[in-house]
Amino acid sequence: MDIFFLGTGAGMPAKLRNVTSIALKLLEERGEVWLFDAGEATQHQILHTSIRPRRIEKIFITHLHGDHIYGLPGLLSSRSFQGGESEVTVYGPKGIKEYINVSLSISQTYLKYPLHIIEIEEGIIFEDEQFLVETLPLDHGILSYGYRIVEKDRPGTLLADKLIEAGIRPGPIFKKIKNGETVTLEDGRTIEPADFLGPVQNGRIVTILGDTRYCENAVTLAKNADLLVHEATFSKGEEKLAFDYFHSTTHQAAKIASQANCKQLCLTHISSRYDRIAWRELAEEARELFSNTEIAEDFKEITLPLK
Amino acid sequence: MDIFFLGTGAGMPAKLRNVTSIALKLLEERGEVWLFDAGEATQHQILHTSIRPRRIEKIFITHLHGDHIYGLPGLLSSRSFQGGESEVTVYGPKGIKEYINVSLSISQTYLKYPLHIIEIEEGIIFEDEQFLVETLPLDHGILSYGYRIVEKDRPGTLLADKLIEAGIRPGPIFKKIKNGETVTLEDGRTIEPADFLGPVQNGRIVTILGDTRYCENAVTLAKNADLLVHEATFSKGEEKLAFDYFHSTTHQAAKIASQANCKQLCLTHISSRYDRIAWRELAEEARELFSNTEIAEDFKEITLPLK
Ligand SMILES: [Zn+2]
Ligand SMILES: [Zn+2]
Repeated sequence: MDIFFLGTGAGMPAKLRNVTSIALKLLEERGEVWLFDAGEATQHQILHTSIRPRRIEKIFITHLHGDHIYGLPGLLSSRSFQGGESEVTVYGPKGIKEYINVSLSISQTYLKYPLHIIEIEEGIIFEDEQFLVETLPLDHGILSYGYRIVEKDRPGTLLADKLIEAGIRPGPIFKKIKNGETVTLEDGRTIEPADFLGPVQNGRIVTILGDTRYCENAVTLAKNADLLVHEATFSKGEEKLAFDYFHSTTHQAAKIASQANCKQLCLTHISSRYDRIAWRELAEEARELFSNTEIAEDFKEITLPLK
Repeated sequence: MDIFFLGTGAGMPAKLRNVTSIALKLLEERGEVWLFDAGEATQHQILHTSIRPRRIEKIFITHLHGDHIYGLPGLLSSRSFQGGESEVTVYGPKGIKEYINVSLSISQTYLKYPLHIIEIEEGIIFEDEQFLVETLPLDHGILSYGYRIVEKDRPGTLLADKLIEAGIRPGPIFKKIKNGETVTLEDGRTIEPADFLGPVQNGRIVTILGDTRYCENAVTLAKNADLLVHEATFSKGEEKLAFDYFHSTTHQAAKIASQANCKQLCLTHISSRYDRIAWRELAEEARELFSNTEIAEDFKEITLPLK
């Protein structure tokens, strides 16, 4: 599981930072890439990475500002052009459907794969055996969602050799134990699954928030996250400016990470007013309140190892 | 007058060529830049040039395929963000208005300058004292326009010294002569304006065509042009492929330039199947039929000097 930053700037593309897009690479977990936002030229950024557009199967849009969506029609088109055939689902606020449909239909773009567009509300928007994705609205003037991506715990692997040693033959009993059921054998012995299963593999939690002011829902979404990706459009001391423009400062992002008991914080959506030297200072500011903080750059990758 | 190629690729962005956009720099003539098409990341390309988005006052769209329009909403937004205040007019086929309006309104983008969107039909779509822009439909499956940009001839400058030498005083007579009128003086002399005006400054003609098969209207639009910008998605010999995909080959582009008696041809919209070595060959092929041919590259500029 890797978080790869495709675009980390605010509002407009700049030479050093493109507008927002973040890839959650779940290649080992499910052979897929999930995208969070797709600002203009996200597909251009992808050209310079190892990400294959055909692997992108889910796209989560935080909010409808242009710097987060104007790359969607091109990305979807090119994915088709390049032979992508597997289904894509786009999740986003109400309006995303009209935007995509009008862009594709006016340009007479016919995708060669099924495209589902789901206009979301808060709550659980996706769940399968492996993952769960939850959203809550943030505070950005326009409706802006935060996404909490929860990898489910995986039960330990069955210790088959140990079972055989205990005189149990492969078959239905193995299955029950694997599923965590306590089994009473014909000879009266009781088999506790915990004794015949390896350690549980705890799932990881990643929280990726859309643009927002400092807000309570950010804490809820980030609770105990292994990684929180939070915007920090402005430096500390610019709280007034941040408030007026519905954004956050470095300190506010760090406060959320601290209150939510996160393990790691990565700042993104950095205003182009800050140069390379200032980037370091922004990270340092956040570390005053939350030490395990990094600042995103385009093409930066953060790996979240198995726990 | 300079033609600056911002994007010269076909269909999809590639590492070496972005999707289509061409800037006609009319800085000396009118302090403006006119854009022809705006594929995705046109504003990103502009970041690496001396072109100021606020100078872009007219945008002509040849056709509505995504690789020619997906950069429009971002470009229009950023121009506003950067303080552009002067009016912009977008010309394009029916549908361009809905595309722009939906993109801007769903993203809640409010431009700080007046935006006019004109859905054009064939004929003269713009004219003032300096320039005239004419269009005709080409042959591309989807409605695709070609643009003929005609700079009007400028009358020669008034030779004031020569008039004074001839005993004529500055005043209304000067004005009449400047306007090309023959004047009879009180003393009976007839003054022919040709004798008291410098040489006429002939206007330049640039023809920029949208994607197209080889077609008659291309010849009409390119008649005597100083520069024809024609697509050459495929190499010679690929006429079948070009026909099937509604595109042209190098030879077909050269044939149009030759039949239209153009002075110069520049090939663009080059498929990413061709590498740097093949680019040379594409230009060479065209030169077999029209010697003064170049092949466009991203960031290439062609200057058209005064005649
Ligand atoms: Zn933003
Ligand atoms: Zn095209």
